[in-house]
Formats: sequence, C-alpha cells, structure tokens
Amino acid sequence: MNRKIILYTLGIVCRAEAGLMLLPAICGLIYGESEGLSYIFVAAISFLIGAVLQSLKPDNHLFYLKEGCLAVALAWIVMSCIGALPFVITEEIPNYLNALFETVSGFTTTGASILSDVEALSHASLLWRSFTHWVGGMGVLVFVLAIVPLSGGSNINLMKAESPGPSVGKLMPHLKQTAMALYAIYILMTILEFIILAFGKMPVFDNLCITFGTAGTGGFSIRNSGCADYTVFQQWVITIFMILFGVNFNAYYFLLAGDVKKAFANEEVRTYFSIIAGAIAIICLNTYRLYDTFADTLRNAAFQVGSIITTTGYATTDFALWPSLSQSVLVVLMFIGACAGSTGGGIKVSRIIIVFKSFLREVDSYIHPKSMKQIKMDGEPVDTDTVRATNVYISTFILIFTISVFLVSIEGRDFATNFTAVTACINNIGPGLGDVGPMSNFGSLSGLTKFVLIVDMLAGRLELYPIIIFFDPVIWTDLAQDAAAKRRRKAIRAKRAARKGK
Amino acid sequence: MNRKIILYTLGIVCRAEAGLMLLPAICGLIYGESEGLSYIFVAAISFLIGAVLQSLKPDNHLFYLKEGCLAVALAWIVMSCIGALPFVITEEIPNYLNALFETVSGFTTTGASILSDVEALSHASLLWRSFTHWVGGMGVLVFVLAIVPLSGGSNINLMKAESPGPSVGKLMPHLKQTAMALYAIYILMTILEFIILAFGKMPVFDNLCITFGTAGTGGFSIRNSGCADYTVFQQWVITIFMILFGVNFNAYYFLLAGDVKKAFANEEVRTYFSIIAGAIAIICLNTYRLYDTFADTLRNAAFQVGSIITTTGYATTDFALWPSLSQSVLVVLMFIGACAGSTGGGIKVSRIIIVFKSFLREVDSYIHPKSMKQIKMDGEPVDTDTVRATNVYISTFILIFTISVFLVSIEGRDFATNFTAVTACINNIGPGLGDVGPMSNFGSLSGLTKFVLIVDMLAGRLELYPIIIFFDPVIWTDLAQDAAAKRRRKAIRAKRAARKGK
Repeated sequence: MNRKIILYTLGIVCRAEAGLMLLPAICGLIYGESEGLSYIFVAAISFLIGAVLQSLKPDNHLFYLKEGCLAVALAWIVMSCIGALPFVITEEIPNYLNALFETVSGFTTTGASILSDVEALSHASLLWRSFTHWVGGMGVLVFVLAIVPLSGGSNINLMKAESPGPSVGKLMPHLKQTAMALYAIYILMTILEFIILAFGKMPVFDNLCITFGTAGTGGFSIRNSGCADYTVFQQWVITIFMILFGVNFNAYYFLLAGDVKKAFANEEVRTYFSIIAGAIAIICLNTYRLYDTFADTLRNAAFQVGSIITTTGYATTDFALWPSLSQSVLVVLMFIGACAGSTGGGIKVSRIIIVFKSFLREVDSYIHPKSMKQIKMDGEPVDTDTVRATNVYISTFILIFTISVFLVSIEGRDFATNFTAVTACINNIGPGLGDVGPMSNFGSLSGLTKFVLIVDMLAGRLELYPIIIFFDPVIWTDLAQDAAAKRRRKAIRAKRAARKGK
Repeated sequence: MNRKIILYTLGIVCRAEAGLMLLPAICGLIYGESEGLSYIFVAAISFLIGAVLQSLKPDNHLFYLKEGCLAVALAWIVMSCIGALPFVITEEIPNYLNALFETVSGFTTTGASILSDVEALSHASLLWRSFTHWVGGMGVLVFVLAIVPLSGGSNINLMKAESPGPSVGKLMPHLKQTAMALYAIYILMTILEFIILAFGKMPVFDNLCITFGTAGTGGFSIRNSGCADYTVFQQWVITIFMILFGVNFNAYYFLLAGDVKKAFANEEVRTYFSIIAGAIAIICLNTYRLYDTFADTLRNAAFQVGSIITTTGYATTDFALWPSLSQSVLVVLMFIGACAGSTGGGIKVSRIIIVFKSFLREVDSYIHPKSMKQIKMDGEPVDTDTVRATNVYISTFILIFTISVFLVSIEGRDFATNFTAVTACINNIGPGLGDVGPMSNFGSLSGLTKFVLIVDMLAGRLELYPIIIFFDPVIWTDLAQDAAAKRRRKAIRAKRAARKGK
C-alpha cells in the first residue's frame, strides 16, 4: 500500500479547497459581510494542512485500485470536514454534524438541506453552498488528474474510483487530456447557462448560485420557495440545462470534435431522452387538473422530471401533493438517475440499459437455451466483466439501501419518509417524500439518521465501492501491517548501519 | 414446440384438480352444506376438460425448457381459473375477478384475501381455500412428475420451471423418485402438525385448515381475528411448524436418510435460522413496551417473524401498529423469504447468500484485483452460470416489482400501501402495511390493481421466468408458426397422397 501517495494527494486536495474558498471570501468582501473572514481563516488552515501533507514526498507515483478508492474516499471526507467549518465558525449552522451534512450534501451534489430558512444565510455562505455543488459535480480527483503527474496506468485507477458509470471511457490517449477536456466542456456550459439566465434578467447572485447548482446537478436553492418564484423563462432555462448536464459528456466531446453522428448515436443518451419524454407525458396526463393551463402543467412536469432524473432536486411545486402515479414515476426516476459520465447521480441510465439487456438475454436463454447472446451497447459488445459488475452493482446498491433504511427507521418515522430519505440521499437527489418532501428539510432528523444519510450521500456519489472499502477493516489492517513491516525494515537497516559503524 | 405434450400435461392437471375438489365436496356433505354440490359440479367439468385434453395423445414425451415454462404457467393459470368457479357458483364471492384473486392467492400460497368476513364462508369453501395452499405449496407439476412418464432429461425442465431456488438439486438418481420423496416428507410433516395441534385441543376443522395453511406457507385464516384467538400452545406450535416448512426439504431428506451431519451442514438452513433469531431479537427489543410480559413479546415476535420470513402471512397481532424499526425488519424479511426447496416464497435465502457473496467478491476484487475468487456454498464452488443467473434474477425481480408498483399506484393510494401490496403478493406473503395490513384485506382495491397483483402472485410463486415467458409475444408467434408449418406439411402430404391416389 502506497500510503505516501494517498497523503500527498490529500495535500493537493486541501490546497485546492483553500483556493476554492477564496470565492465565498471575495463574495463576503463585496457584500461587506463579516462571514467572509471565516472563509479566509479556514482557507488558511486548509492551505497549511495541505502544505504539511505535501511535504511527505512519495517514493513513487504508483496508484493501484485500492489506493485509488481509499484516496478518493478520504479526499471527499476531508474536503467535507474542512468545508463544513465556516458554517460553524459563522454560527450560521452551529451544530457541526448539521454543517457536515450540509457540506457533504453540497459536494456530493445531493442538495438535501437541514436549513428551514435558507434566506437567513449570508451571501458568502449561500455562494459556498452552491459552489460545492459545482466543484463536486465534475469530481475533485478529475481536477487533480488534470494537474498532477502520475506514473504508468495509475491515473486510470483514480479516475475509475471517482467517475460515474459502469466503465471508464478514454476520450483521448492520455487521461490528463481527457480530464482537461471534460473540465473545459463543463466550464463552457456553465458560462452559457449564466449568460442565458442573465439575458432572462435573473439577479446576478441568484444566477450564480442557481447556475452552480444546475451544472453540478446539486439542487441547493437560495430561496425558501425553491425555484417557484423564478419567471417562466428562467424556469424553462433551468429545466433545459438540468437535462443537458445529465447527458453523458462524451456526447458533447464528439459534438465539439465535429463528429455529430457519433454524438447522436449514443444509446444511453437516446434512452435518457426517451425516459424523460415518457415521464413528462405520464405526469402531464396525471396532474393536468391541478394546474390552470396546459403550459403550467407541462412546465411543472418538465421541471420536476428534469430535476429528479438528473438528481438535481430543485422544485417549483410541492410534488409530495401530486397523485400517487406521478409520485411513483418520480421515485422510479430517482433510482434511474442521469447518464454515466455526466454530473448527475443515481444508478445511471447505462447501467439500467445493461441490466435490462441482461434480463432480456436471460428470458431468451429460456426460449433458445443453446445460444447465449452477447450484450451490445452502441452496436459494440459489452465485455462480460462489465455486465457482471453491473448486476453486482445493483445487488450492492440494494444491500446498502436496505441497511440504511433499516438504521434510519430506528428513529421511528413513517415508511415513506424512511424509504425516500435514503433514496434521495444515496441517489444524490435532495428532496424525498413524507417528512423530507420538497418543501420540508432534513433538519429535524436524529443524529444517527443524519450520519447514515451522510455515508449514503458519499456512497452514492462515489458509486459505492470507495466508501465500502473505506469501511472495510481489511484495508486498514493492510495499512497497519504495511506500516509495521516498513518500521521493521527500517529498524533492521538501522541495526545494520549501527553494526557497520562499529 | 411440442404443443400436444403441453395440452396433455394440462389434461392431467385438470383431472388432478377434479380429484382434489372432492375434499371440499365431502366436507360439504359432512356439514350438510349445499355449497358442497358446487364442488362436485365443478369437479365434473374439470374432469371432462381433462379427459378431452388427454385424448390429444402427444407424439413424443419431450419437454424443452420453453415448453416446461409454458406448461407450468398454463397449468397454474388453468388450475386457478377452474378453482375459482365454486366461489362464484355458491355466490360466496360473486365477482369472478375477486374469486380468481382468492384462488390464485391460495394456490400461490400467498394468503392475501379479498374477504372482510371469512367467517361467513361455508365449511366447504373454507376448506377448499386452505387446501389450495397445501396443493400449491409443494407444486402441482412436482406431483405430475411423480406420476407421469416423460422421456429423456425432459422432466428436469419441468421441475426447473416450477421449483423454487437458484438451482435444482437431484436428491436421487431419478427425478420421479425425488418428487415422490419430497411429497412423502411433506405429507408426513403435515400429519405431524395435525396430531400435535389436536393434542393441543384445536377443533378438528380449524386444525385441518390451519395445518394446510402452515404446510403450504399460505396464510389464509378462517377466523376474522387471524390467529390471535388460538391458545399460547397452539400459537407456538404454528410458529415452529411455519419455520420448519420454510427449511430446505433436502435437509429433511438427509435427516431421514440418517445423514445428520449433512443435514446440519447446510449453509442456507443455518443462515435461515440465524436470520430468524436476529429478527426476533431486534423486534423483542423494539416492541417489549407494547406487551405485558416478556413471554407475550417473544411469542408475538417469533410468530410474526416465522410467519413473514416463510411468507406464510398468519398474524396474531396487528404489526402495522409496531414501531418503524420492527416494520422495517418485517419488510426486509418479506424480500428474503424462506429457503430454496421449501414451500415458502420470497427471493430465497440461498439467493441472498449468493448475492451477498458476489458482493464480497466484488469488494475483494478492488483490494486484490488479480485474484477473482470462486463463490462457494456448503464448501463447494457455485458455477458461474448460477451466480450470473442469481444476480440477473434480482434485477428481473426489481424490474417486475417496479412496473407493478407503478401500475398499482394508478389507483391513487399511499406509498406504503402500493409498495407493500406488491411486496406481499410477489413474495407470496399475504398481508402488507397501510390499507392492506394484517387486519385489513385486498377487497377494496381496483380491478386493475387486483389483476396486476394476480400476475405478481403467479410470477412470485413460479420464480418470474415462466410467467414472463407466458407474456412474451415471441413464444406465441413461435407456437403459431409451428402450427402453420405443421398445417402446411399436412396439406403437402395430403396433396401427395391425393396425387398418388390418382
């Protein structure tokens, strides 16, 4: 186990976070808020920790998959722990567990909040909250990849551990270039949304926060009414961009590279749009009596569908009051999630496709037992390892989901609340139904429940395994044994040197 | 496609059902109820249909897997359609869809009832209801296997399609003997329970019905209070026998064969008992304030746990009033279900074990990427095909489950009702939570919901694929094409014969 490279990576992350915190600090300065100072203070601490960790120069830049997983899990945990500090120092969220919940919810692009009155927050803290979505959306380690030199095939293990989706695609021969291209697309699209919303006369501060939340498919709103008070134009722009940020970024890459055919041939993206269209149609049919005009019905249906399938979690209406069928549609969308390789969460459309195809193949094997067909995606066969891993992923997901519902239900709330609170957190959506519906918040939940949901949010964002491995005793005994062996070797070497000296 | 062998098998099933209906007929005679005559009438019809179908002598006794699946699906559907007739003729359940729901619920050993007042039923109908559990528990085709000669390896395809569990074990060199041995154990254990309950002074009629319901892990009760009015001794006897009928029958076979070590070494059975013990412990801790004494708490916890994990569905207390944690435990048990090769339903403990082990293997592959360990059960490696099929089974289960909840929610009930109604039916349990809790019934649900739940009950009992294949258009176009090809061949032969005649 290469401990030093993990700590070194953590150092980069801490220093990066220090840099990111300058944004809310500047915002605080502009608005003349004393809260801005807390961000400068925490940034300084984060920078110092980063410098100390980076002073441990690693012997080699080699990352195996287990190191990748552990580094990613630790990076997200450390980032969240530091990111929560300003909320506590400013006393805006005095309870550290609550602040941590809010920060993890931010970085994992969940958007579940413990605040009942977001409008009471300072501008600096509101911006930081929304900015964590943007940072977490594309992934922090992807950013690290874009700037750090790693040897051999090591970086693929880091990318594999953080990237959403059943398999990691290399767009360019070098992962570093891929990471940079992805970030470039991400930044471009964010700027585009900001410009269009500005054109639609959204106030600059709202615009910045909403754009960050849309881009990262996060969902923290900065008004107590969610997105209900924005104009029709603004709501449609948000709807469209939520859906666009849920598309596999590879499609944009091909589009920019001029390969329009390849961009539109993507099976996952086509399925994603079909699901969205179907869901909007069903909900329109099911809710048209609740709204005055068809335009209203369509807008609310499209906004909520776009928000839920991309796991953003913005709301313009209280869908907890919708009829059961529409609620069921939303719950199903919560699990499906966005495309792999997007900023969205959930199980991911491509996994659903692979699982559905392995189901069809299984049925076919009953009718034609001798031919076991290969599963294809985009016309190319999917390797059996990916199919296996995808089906096991579903089982793993259910396992963690079940244990979580189980632990959350100790608190004694109703079934819909327990079930959808876990659903909303593990899929990184934000609002659920029942006590955690779109017009409620997670603040009143017990400490145990919040802790479980924090782990679920991280597990969901990092696609389960890094967090499972973080909690696996094997990895820690491995680490301890490695350290002990190293100490022993050192002692022997010291003895030999001493003997020689004699 | 060998159509004739399918129809021939259906003929046997119809004639068998005619024979089974004599039991309620005799019961009606004993109690001097006119309802008994309806059973004789329907038995006669069933016998006639059976005779007609059996007159179509098949050319060969060859069953492929698709014929096996189709035969099993059709057998269960036909049996249920005929079995529902007496309820309609006696006007005890005048609506045919309701009668069909009740009968499917009986044969699939679900035990979900549409009746609000079961005590209003005649003795003949009560006995028939409970008797369907007993018949469905061990499976009808297993019975057919024990008496019909099938050529080659054909019978394994019939058994595979009906038997619960991830893989079919052959206890003896010939499947026919295996089927007979299983039935012998089943009958012996049923008699044993009857004797012990008689010793505990349960009235003979109650005893018969309750024993049938326990043996088949069905759960129809014949009192409006469920099992709450039976004595403490009787409740404990029912508890123990429910749990015993949920054990893999292979264990009993080894026990009877004197191989005690092999019987107790079974990993599935040990896990099953561990889960039961754990669930009882948690529920006792969670509900001890609701009952006067620890003995009461333990009895109610053990009864409900035994009832739910074996998917029987008897109740001595309204667990819909239990705290959330206990309810969550029960919902998890609903999905786990009993052992493979028992009369219980659910996903089955052995599948859960395989899925859990493939999860552990996946985690291990992150830590030690080069070694992909083999999954073992009872010390022997599980073949990769079974592991794959088991993981796909879970995905298939979720797919059908999701579609069902979706369709059920059209009716507009609350989330807990929709979710647990489907859970209770697809896992063949009986009661759910919310509007379909243990002290409520399924009578008030809409026609569409009842139809969906009927399909779910059949899908759950036959372990998904036979019912999916029944609804697969491919199989019906296959059949139609086969028939057309046969007609064409016949026409050509007739032409040739005519030409020769000239």
